[in-house]
Amino acid sequence: MIIGLVLTVSVLALLVAIALARWVLAMDNGTAEMRAISDAIQEGAQAFLKRQYRTISLLSVVVGLVIFLIYEIVRAPSPNDPHEVSRLWLALSTTASFFFGALCSGIAGYVGMFVSIRANIRAASAARSSLNRALQAALRGGAVSGLFVVAMSLLGVGGLYFLVNTITTVPVTKIPLMIVGYGFGASFVALFAQLGGGIYTKAADVGADLVGKVEAGIPEDDPRNPAVIADLVGDNVGDCAGRGADLFESTAAENIGAMILGSVLALRVQQANPAAAFSVVGVMLFPLVVRAFGLIASIVGVLVVKAREDEDPMHALNRGYWVTALLAALGFVGGTYWLLQFPGHPDAWWHFAMAGVIGIATSIAFVYITQYYTEYRYRPVKAIAAASVTGPATNIISGFAVALECTALPAFVIGLAIISSYDLGRSAVPGGGLFGTAVATMGMLGTAAYILAMDTFGPITDNAGGIIEMSKQPEEIRRKTDRLDAVGNTTKALTKGYAVGSAALAAFLLFSAYMDEIGFYTNRSFTTVDIAKPEIFVAALLGAMLIFWFSSLAINAVQKAAVNVIKEVRRQFSEDAGILAGTSRPNYARCVDIVTVGALKEMVAPGLLAVGMPITVGLVFRLLGVGAEAVAAFLMVGTITGILVALMLNNGGGAWDNAKKFIEMGEYGGKGSLAHKAGVVGDTVGDPFKDTAGPSLHVLIKLLSTVTLVLAPLFI
Amino acid sequence: MIIGLVLTVSVLALLVAIALARWVLAMDNGTAEMRAISDAIQEGAQAFLKRQYRTISLLSVVVGLVIFLIYEIVRAPSPNDPHEVSRLWLALSTTASFFFGALCSGIAGYVGMFVSIRANIRAASAARSSLNRALQAALRGGAVSGLFVVAMSLLGVGGLYFLVNTITTVPVTKIPLMIVGYGFGASFVALFAQLGGGIYTKAADVGADLVGKVEAGIPEDDPRNPAVIADLVGDNVGDCAGRGADLFESTAAENIGAMILGSVLALRVQQANPAAAFSVVGVMLFPLVVRAFGLIASIVGVLVVKAREDEDPMHALNRGYWVTALLAALGFVGGTYWLLQFPGHPDAWWHFAMAGVIGIATSIAFVYITQYYTEYRYRPVKAIAAASVTGPATNIISGFAVALECTALPAFVIGLAIISSYDLGRSAVPGGGLFGTAVATMGMLGTAAYILAMDTFGPITDNAGGIIEMSKQPEEIRRKTDRLDAVGNTTKALTKGYAVGSAALAAFLLFSAYMDEIGFYTNRSFTTVDIAKPEIFVAALLGAMLIFWFSSLAINAVQKAAVNVIKEVRRQFSEDAGILAGTSRPNYARCVDIVTVGALKEMVAPGLLAVGMPITVGLVFRLLGVGAEAVAAFLMVGTITGILVALMLNNGGGAWDNAKKFIEMGEYGGKGSLAHKAGVVGDTVGDPFKDTAGPSLHVLIKLLSTVTLVLAPLFI
Repeated sequence: MIIGLVLTVSVLALLVAIALARWVLAMDNGTAEMRAISDAIQEGAQAFLKRQYRTISLLSVVVGLVIFLIYEIVRAPSPNDPHEVSRLWLALSTTASFFFGALCSGIAGYVGMFVSIRANIRAASAARSSLNRALQAALRGGAVSGLFVVAMSLLGVGGLYFLVNTITTVPVTKIPLMIVGYGFGASFVALFAQLGGGIYTKAADVGADLVGKVEAGIPEDDPRNPAVIADLVGDNVGDCAGRGADLFESTAAENIGAMILGSVLALRVQQANPAAAFSVVGVMLFPLVVRAFGLIASIVGVLVVKAREDEDPMHALNRGYWVTALLAALGFVGGTYWLLQFPGHPDAWWHFAMAGVIGIATSIAFVYITQYYTEYRYRPVKAIAAASVTGPATNIISGFAVALECTALPAFVIGLAIISSYDLGRSAVPGGGLFGTAVATMGMLGTAAYILAMDTFGPITDNAGGIIEMSKQPEEIRRKTDRLDAVGNTTKALTKGYAVGSAALAAFLLFSAYMDEIGFYTNRSFTTVDIAKPEIFVAALLGAMLIFWFSSLAINAVQKAAVNVIKEVRRQFSEDAGILAGTSRPNYARCVDIVTVGALKEMVAPGLLAVGMPITVGLVFRLLGVGAEAVAAFLMVGTITGILVALMLNNGGGAWDNAKKFIEMGEYGGKGSLAHKAGVVGDTVGDPFKDTAGPSLHVLIKLLSTVTLVLAPLFI
Repeated sequence: MIIGLVLTVSVLALLVAIALARWVLAMDNGTAEMRAISDAIQEGAQAFLKRQYRTISLLSVVVGLVIFLIYEIVRAPSPNDPHEVSRLWLALSTTASFFFGALCSGIAGYVGMFVSIRANIRAASAARSSLNRALQAALRGGAVSGLFVVAMSLLGVGGLYFLVNTITTVPVTKIPLMIVGYGFGASFVALFAQLGGGIYTKAADVGADLVGKVEAGIPEDDPRNPAVIADLVGDNVGDCAGRGADLFESTAAENIGAMILGSVLALRVQQANPAAAFSVVGVMLFPLVVRAFGLIASIVGVLVVKAREDEDPMHALNRGYWVTALLAALGFVGGTYWLLQFPGHPDAWWHFAMAGVIGIATSIAFVYITQYYTEYRYRPVKAIAAASVTGPATNIISGFAVALECTALPAFVIGLAIISSYDLGRSAVPGGGLFGTAVATMGMLGTAAYILAMDTFGPITDNAGGIIEMSKQPEEIRRKTDRLDAVGNTTKALTKGYAVGSAALAAFLLFSAYMDEIGFYTNRSFTTVDIAKPEIFVAALLGAMLIFWFSSLAINAVQKAAVNVIKEVRRQFSEDAGILAGTSRPNYARCVDIVTVGALKEMVAPGLLAVGMPITVGLVFRLLGVGAEAVAAFLMVGTITGILVALMLNNGGGAWDNAKKFIEMGEYGGKGSLAHKAGVVGDTVGDPFKDTAGPSLHVLIKLLSTVTLVLAPLFI
């Protein structure tokens, strides 16, 4: 009955998403000139996605086989094997759920992109008549992505649970352990989607800017720039497909991790009160139920958004966010009252409800902290702009100082959220501390669909602006799309902050799930990760180092892919003088093709490092007899460092971006001044930070958890 | 008898240092013109040191009082107090040793600076006749600093041990715990010396470069630049006094930490073999003995250095280093054979000797890795230079990618060193694992005096070049000092790598000492730091975050102090046109004064954060009942992150510096090209990274250990 509700809501949310997509697609799609540009973007984006998915599919098949072999063959037979699941079933279900997770992530990403690259021209066209219509086109187009991502991840986990429960005789509380592959499949796709998309978008952007803006002196989004279409495609494949896969992974991994923790807790409570009427399954399915409530809240939030023509569009989006957050909080309280009634602990449900509210509050705190560090109304961005007067060097130094500083407040917030929700859980029911942090994570992710809709709003409005600019629409329409574009930049920055925060909370829950799983396989309680042991300390050191190494590879990948774009744009300019004169049409498709090939090639090295290093560390330290514990330390300290470095890269990049925009508004000499030149340098430096390395780190953090969850048997 | 040997060698080393100083001071001190410049440097450096020491003294008095109060009053009386030391004695000896450590560090820093700011003009003068004479003047001038630092730290620890042993009846194995204040005193001075010096040197450098080189277009070290003397002073107060204090702290903290671990191990062995003839004191004093042997090795190493006139001076310095390393290794083997004969474990001594050799090998590995990442013969620097062709943005991106990447190899090396030395120790004698890592640390620090001599060689030759340049000596002499200066840049970079590596190894030993100390106070074994507990995980997160926050403050401090220099240089240029024309003498003293005031002001905030945050974390988590364990996690993960961020900042800065030099050698268009301009931007960005924030982090890492060692009673 509970699972029926979850599946029904998921399917309903998908139907709403399809209705929204039809609503958007039915809108006017502009002039023939606009369509020509939009068609080129669609073509480029779909070509990239197709080739990217082909590469990812190939890699997935290899990984899936490896998983199967590990579960079926490599793991030494244990006579005291405590779990009632047969080896073959476990291997099959883990492998199948890996493929299913990868597939669902791919479908969600594809559908989201499909709509967003069609919503852009509709938003552009609508901007010619009404700001509100344009805003709604962009937000509802984005909501298709948001709803598909969250609903598919819920449907996937819920469906797998239902399936395994129907066709096997496995005890229900063991099912979550059989489907951990789903989370890993989602992570695996997310890593490459975010890496590939992130490299694509920034290689195109840096290439277009360096030759177009700096060398040839033509403005941004100028149709004479051969890389301009690639740049517009990049916004979709990076922000829309990349971040979608990121949050798909978060919700999938968090669903499974929370179910594992819930089942462990519920079984313990049942053993202590064998006589009491108490639904173990209810506790275990609670994470899926509140996720379903969150979906409903997000749908309402999206539908209420409506802007007055003279209003700051950000206010309208914020109203929708508050509605979503409020409804999600109500759903939380209802869900805890319904499902978290522990015998002998009448107060437990509202303690957990409070933990959920803490999660929601954490997400709000992250949104405000991100704004403080990346908006030009506040000190940090102003300081960078002021430092630009003395040139690019001081701009970079100042921006780097801001980037380092912005890690402080989020660390305190995360710390407070973890400790207080743990404490609430512990006071709710004995041994419930970890489930308390899990509930806070659910709270934080409750509004994920709405947040993702706001995020995809970014590339849609960015593209709409580009289409208006390239099709030479009147100045007043351009001003409208510029306003929407500015809001889109803000929402993109906020989503990144949200994604880091939720990754941090989810990680703590995932490594607890990993430790429970190790305990399940070894039949010995595994609760301590002692970094005072030298081997464990070294594993922790290597975990932290991975973050730096991975970031280096990601940033370098952009640099390498951009070089080819630069060469191609220069070649086109020099071979046909008509391009810059505006008489010949540049060869957009070749640039798109070059970025596609480059991004797909360059995503492989960091991707393999991310998957390979935790496995290698686990196997090597297994030889020293501490495989499982070393992996846990690797994971935890890698996560800590990953959170901080991701914050540094995301917010640093955002601050540099807006410092440039602040100067462009006329401060410190405005456009064309020396300060502006310095600001452009900072912005370019920040690009691969905030759109490639930073977002890839969110994914990496969760991938580390899911890969270790799936490969746990290997480390024992 | 053993302690007598240690004290004798320390005093002897000081006498050798004085003899070397007399040898250097007896050299020709150049023309009147050269002396005028050198005098200005001396004046500025001494004025800064005087004011800096006054500030540090004031802060020290406050901290000393706080320590006394904590030990005497705050700590709740415990009826089962297990230690045979009276409370008052403990409070007195800890406080007194804190002051003594601070004092010794100050004396070592002062003497080193006193000689180095006099050796610069002698090296410059000698360069007019012989390269070898100039090289020897600089190295032996630097050796005064190196020998004083290491000998004073040895004399301090040894002397305190002797004193406490003579005037109290405390069991000898408890003495190290009574003098932990010495290490904290040394750390405390080191933090402010390195922060103040680092801010000074880079504020002056950035200020001089931005107005002089970039705005006015005059060359480096041009006498028309009002900030040029401040810049030359900066090299002394940053590299010489700062790094000296850094290594003073390393050796002092390591001595005490290793003594604590040695006494714990020796007592355990004695209890297991009560009948055997075995010297507990010998094991405990072993660290001091091998340090004494290292001093002798360094003296020989310094004295054998002699360069042919046509030789690369780096080769001559390397020969000296290999001699030192070889002799230190021999001393190690001898020392282990003499003192580490454990009853029933005839193989133990050579297992420990091997651990020492691992430490020496680690220091060599760090030297080579640092070279790879910072010299233009290798890929990383070449890649940055190549990326400069497309402007400052790609130069910065590429440099940042190198900075992130360079953390990987050192992490593997440290990991290997810790695990293998731990394993050797464990196989030598049961429970000897930690002492094995301690012995490796001793091995790594064995050549500290020679390394420090090479490091101080840097500012001396840099200053010699400046004096030659400013006094307009012939081109051929300038070429000679340029060669020495280039070598000095390399040795400075290598020392930083060495300092990080030794900090990493020393840290592992120091937190073990901290845990032993907690065990001593609580009379309960404290061996586990479990980051799977939420509170401990959060403390670890905060430890990592401190590194980012501290780095931000340090980098910002340079920026703030530099602004005042920029304004002053601009003011002088605009108010007196004769300065740029070369007809009026600029007001050097005013610039020196401005940087002094600025650096001292700006060093306070990061300094207070570094001291205050571990204490606050300890007190807050004490309320949650996990003070001691939380502090340990804070410390350990802070150290891990600190090592990686320090490597990133140091090597990134060094790579940017040399990428610029590579372009200046004629690559990618050479001086004045666009690539060169981009290279200058990268170099400027790297300045506060490599000379302020990075080196301050080495100190911070060790300060975290020593502050927690001293304040341990507060966290229980």
